[in-house]
Amino acid sequence: MKFSTEELIKGIQSGDKRLIAKAITLVESKKDEHRNQAEDLLKEIMPFTGKSIRVGITGVPGAGKSTFIENFGRIAISNGKKVAVLAIDPSSAINKGSILGDKTRMEELAKEENAFIRPSPSSGFLGGVANTTFETMMICEAAGYDYILIETVGVGQSEVLVNDITDVFLFLKIIGGGDELQGIKRGIMEMVDVIFINKVEESNLQKAKNTRLELKRALDFIPSKEKDWKVPILLGSALNNEGLYEVFEKISEFIDLKKKTGRFETVRIQQSEKRFEYWVQEYILTMMKKDQSLEAAYAEHKKNASARISNPSTEAKLFVDKFLSKD
Amino acid sequence: MKFSTEELIKGIQSGDKRLIAKAITLVESKKDEHRNQAEDLLKEIMPFTGKSIRVGITGVPGAGKSTFIENFGRIAISNGKKVAVLAIDPSSAINKGSILGDKTRMEELAKEENAFIRPSPSSGFLGGVANTTFETMMICEAAGYDYILIETVGVGQSEVLVNDITDVFLFLKIIGGGDELQGIKRGIMEMVDVIFINKVEESNLQKAKNTRLELKRALDFIPSKEKDWKVPILLGSALNNEGLYEVFEKISEFIDLKKKTGRFETVRIQQSEKRFEYWVQEYILTMMKKDQSLEAAYAEHKKNASARISNPSTEAKLFVDKFLSKD
Repeated sequence: MKFSTEELIKGIQSGDKRLIAKAITLVESKKDEHRNQAEDLLKEIMPFTGKSIRVGITGVPGAGKSTFIENFGRIAISNGKKVAVLAIDPSSAINKGSILGDKTRMEELAKEENAFIRPSPSSGFLGGVANTTFETMMICEAAGYDYILIETVGVGQSEVLVNDITDVFLFLKIIGGGDELQGIKRGIMEMVDVIFINKVEESNLQKAKNTRLELKRALDFIPSKEKDWKVPILLGSALNNEGLYEVFEKISEFIDLKKKTGRFETVRIQQSEKRFEYWVQEYILTMMKKDQSLEAAYAEHKKNASARISNPSTEAKLFVDKFLSKD
Repeated sequence: MKFSTEELIKGIQSGDKRLIAKAITLVESKKDEHRNQAEDLLKEIMPFTGKSIRVGITGVPGAGKSTFIENFGRIAISNGKKVAVLAIDPSSAINKGSILGDKTRMEELAKEENAFIRPSPSSGFLGGVANTTFETMMICEAAGYDYILIETVGVGQSEVLVNDITDVFLFLKIIGGGDELQGIKRGIMEMVDVIFINKVEESNLQKAKNTRLELKRALDFIPSKEKDWKVPILLGSALNNEGLYEVFEKISEFIDLKKKTGRFETVRIQQSEKRFEYWVQEYILTMMKKDQSLEAAYAEHKKNASARISNPSTEAKLFVDKFLSKD
């Protein structure tokens, strides 16, 4: 990295978008020297983080997430907030371009002085993309962004990852029920805090209301994440700027409730602990992958386990013994 | 362990319940010498495992799981099968006695020559119970049991753990809807393959049918785990032995379908891989905990992360560096 940690921190704090982007590239890197510098940087900015509202946003492709984020972001800005847009995409290698790949999708928001849009990390690493959205978020917070909107395409584990780093989880739904719902990722209904039925117009209002009723029934079967919070199901049109302010208000209401009950802080502490555990595994994995013979051994023992050559715990022990006897 | 690996294997293969129990105690142990012997044992019995039908069973306390297992087990036995009953209970320290704690709960089944009942592991280990139900299952399979019934109380992560080691997941439901459903663990509806509404009698038949309708609606919102399988919702009474044979048939039907589509084998391979990953973590954790200073360091760095003294990834790196520089 041709920028020093000091330069990057100064850039972050002065809101220099180019340097913010550079700092994010740094924390996304898996290279040893980058990780060291990244840790230095994160340590320094730590005191300036944690003050934003972290919003996770999900929905099937075609639900209108980009349009929603664009217009919702502008509402937040017109209410005096600074907005950063990030994406989580653990399988970006497969779904290249499907998520924030094309910055121009949010042209209007991108023009705003108080908006920062970051496409998802583009490269995989030995089959896995490092999940550094949390650290990217820290940088945005240190740069003074009040709302961090994190988009997910709803593939693989992405919702769980988003849920693990946000304060409120928003689900964008389009009209329809039954089969069409097959597109919904398992478990999503149990993570949502606010639902927005998008693309509602005069002509399909009744259908939208039916969808709301169906969703309500489904929610009856699912315990609420937060006590005293009934997941609201709002109707509107992101394209026509209808119903977005209501979402903005509901999010504020939800955050207020969580702060009042102490859940806001409790959940953030749990999230930090999870991040710690995640990184312990990540760093141990990195150490493993540094050594090609170890990486091959991992793959081999795993294959032996799945081919039932021997049982999984035996194969695991053989591997761990190899790993820890190495230097 | 005062029994040699050979004695235990011989005992398992001859169906000696006392020695089967001893072997299970061995694989449940976290002591170094026990783990070594356990791995030897598991390696030897490996070729004789994998042939059972593995059934996960869940439901809120009061759903009648014990009675169901007792009478369902006897039906399987009367159809020429050998049945083993296990329990997963990752939080047994908290819920002591709530799950298979009292063997006498299944008096009639316990008397059967072709049944083996194993209470859940009773002791915690530094805050976590080793999850060795998979390995216990291997022992039961090597001993010739055709059906392994695994009960879970539905606390914490237990359903996910059960789902990760079974072929079919059965959900016991009692009549009622709405509030009472709060007791259902998040995500459970998305794991079930067969639902049994228990405690149905003439007097509450209409209510039971309403519950079935509600469940059906809820299921409409949840993608089926297996293509071509519509989760059946059966009515009956475990106590009066009504509807249990239908469950037995539905399970067979489901297993046949999975075998036909190849999903049976595919899922089992995935499960083996997961077990391998689980044990890699477990053994690394064990190595960590062996060293008291490392264990203290882990707790301290985690606490620093959650107290926001520094960011989680920095704390994780500090810890991993300590861990890997040790011997």
